Amino acid sequence: MPDVIQRQLDQALGGDRLSLARLISLVENGSPLVPHVLGQIYPMTGRAKLIGVTGPPGVGKSTLVNQLIARLRDLGGKVGVIAVDPTSPFTGGAILGDRVRMQDRATDPGVFIRSLATRGHLGGLSLAARDAARLMDACGYDYVVVETVGTGQSEVDIMDLAHTVLVVLAPGLGDDIQAQKAGILEIADILVVNKADRDGADQLVAQLNAMLDLARDQSWRPPVVRTVAAEGQGLDQLLASWCGHRAWLESDGRLAARLTRRAGRELEELIGRQAATRIIAAAKQRGVWDQIVADVAAHRCDPYAAATRLLGDDSP
Amino acid sequence: MPDVIQRQLDQALGGDRLSLARLISLVENGSPLVPHVLGQIYPMTGRAKLIGVTGPPGVGKSTLVNQLIARLRDLGGKVGVIAVDPTSPFTGGAILGDRVRMQDRATDPGVFIRSLATRGHLGGLSLAARDAARLMDACGYDYVVVETVGTGQSEVDIMDLAHTVLVVLAPGLGDDIQAQKAGILEIADILVVNKADRDGADQLVAQLNAMLDLARDQSWRPPVVRTVAAEGQGLDQLLASWCGHRAWLESDGRLAARLTRRAGRELEELIGRQAATRIIAAAKQRGVWDQIVADVAAHRCDPYAAATRLLGDDSP
Repeated sequence: MPDVIQRQLDQALGGDRLSLARLISLVENGSPLVPHVLGQIYPMTGRAKLIGVTGPPGVGKSTLVNQLIARLRDLGGKVGVIAVDPTSPFTGGAILGDRVRMQDRATDPGVFIRSLATRGHLGGLSLAARDAARLMDACGYDYVVVETVGTGQSEVDIMDLAHTVLVVLAPGLGDDIQAQKAGILEIADILVVNKADRDGADQLVAQLNAMLDLARDQSWRPPVVRTVAAEGQGLDQLLASWCGHRAWLESDGRLAARLTRRAGRELEELIGRQAATRIIAAAKQRGVWDQIVADVAAHRCDPYAAATRLLGDDSP
Repeated sequence: MPDVIQRQLDQALGGDRLSLARLISLVENGSPLVPHVLGQIYPMTGRAKLIGVTGPPGVGKSTLVNQLIARLRDLGGKVGVIAVDPTSPFTGGAILGDRVRMQDRATDPGVFIRSLATRGHLGGLSLAARDAARLMDACGYDYVVVETVGTGQSEVDIMDLAHTVLVVLAPGLGDDIQAQKAGILEIADILVVNKADRDGADQLVAQLNAMLDLARDQSWRPPVVRTVAAEGQGLDQLLASWCGHRAWLESDGRLAARLTRRAGRELEELIGRQAATRIIAAAKQRGVWDQIVADVAAHRCDPYAAATRLLGDDSP
């Protein structure tokens, strides 16, 4: 590992925020140094409590996260925040606007806020979020809050890193958006109805409870918590619900079992990625890669057979 | 390949819709037979023109697709439609409601409509959509329209299969949703402002043109087309814009170059997946897999090092 990175790592672990920010940029950019950095810090990770916050646009997630940061700070720990934008912005304007709302926390030395945006590689964003959370964890952040906007598969993938997932909704977003909530209910450990002082909040809470009644058997039934984040209302109950979920998670080996499943999936991903890189490099060196790709593109050879052939050449 | 699948394949290629539907279910469920089916049909694919339609909820995509199907039918070809729902629904209600709006096409024997929903495996939905489009292509559908709801990375991945991507927006969806349009502008070949008879349409068109002016140099500038799909307005211009994009794409080897890049990415994916499956199976057989996963989960070993070790054991 280059000296400069090693120095950044030592400084970040010693509490230097700028060095931490630079290491997270390495992760965001998918640098080839990531495995070395992660390898060094990995034994120091696993202490932070990871909280995911997701939901459709317009429900007030940033305001809620802002309040949540304040409450977690009151508990006495350091808080890291990762704001993930799964869209690939043309201008970057959208996410910056969002970040501004969190700025009253930005001067607190116990709070570290970082945005992550996609750099275009498939699935890269959920990997980057996971590794950024590990960096914060190793650098002594007791809580890491990962916020993401939206209701698609990418948000579900990103939320996979969290121990507790808060899905935030709000009344009055219209039928089309509410229909989407079905998808994110599945991943919710806690449901938050924000802007609960608005018309339609009672209905939304009733609707969510009805959907939860229909849900498959589950030992944890997500509580539905009402908040008015802009006024600081409902945060006590939210914090209590979160503590309740932690207690449930840490009992009967549930957290350990969940982390083991995730470790298996992560290994599978990493193995696939590393193997593909090696096999393609070998095929290029033998001068056959371009021809195989051209054959597949021209429908002379099917991609499944081509993949198997390349694997057969290069694996036991 | 089992006889029953071979028979279904022969019948689907002969025009039987039920058999085609069953083969698409294989693809949707990630059946191990997919490589065999795809291997057989792959030489017959590459003829269909693939059109992607995406955009946030509430812009009237289904109505627009419905009109588009009618126009494509007027051109004289058969039309396949794949409606992809990247959320993983709790109840399945959302997508069914959407499908109902397309039902006036369902009795036309030259139209085949199919919904795809996620079965939970990472990235599985974009693979399933791609292979479903290939099945339709091989079965003689001249146009395949792939519709997806949303603005996240999963939609971007799904749209990767299309030759021409229509991004549909509408006036009056509120700031939060409009902010998201930034992400999908990047993948648009044609921008459609639907519900263009509503207040704010002129502003939205002006805004989009301003964003396009800021865009990186590109040899294709996406046209901004106004439609009122519910009244059938603007469809002529949309069809003309699509023809224009096809002509641009097919000149100077652009389409071929694009398909070659996609073939390379697909091969990389398939190689990674197959390699990981083999390597993990081998590790399980040696009885070391569970221990390695437990070591990673307990932070005794970092996942990058573990992946490299497993690869080293099993690869040249």
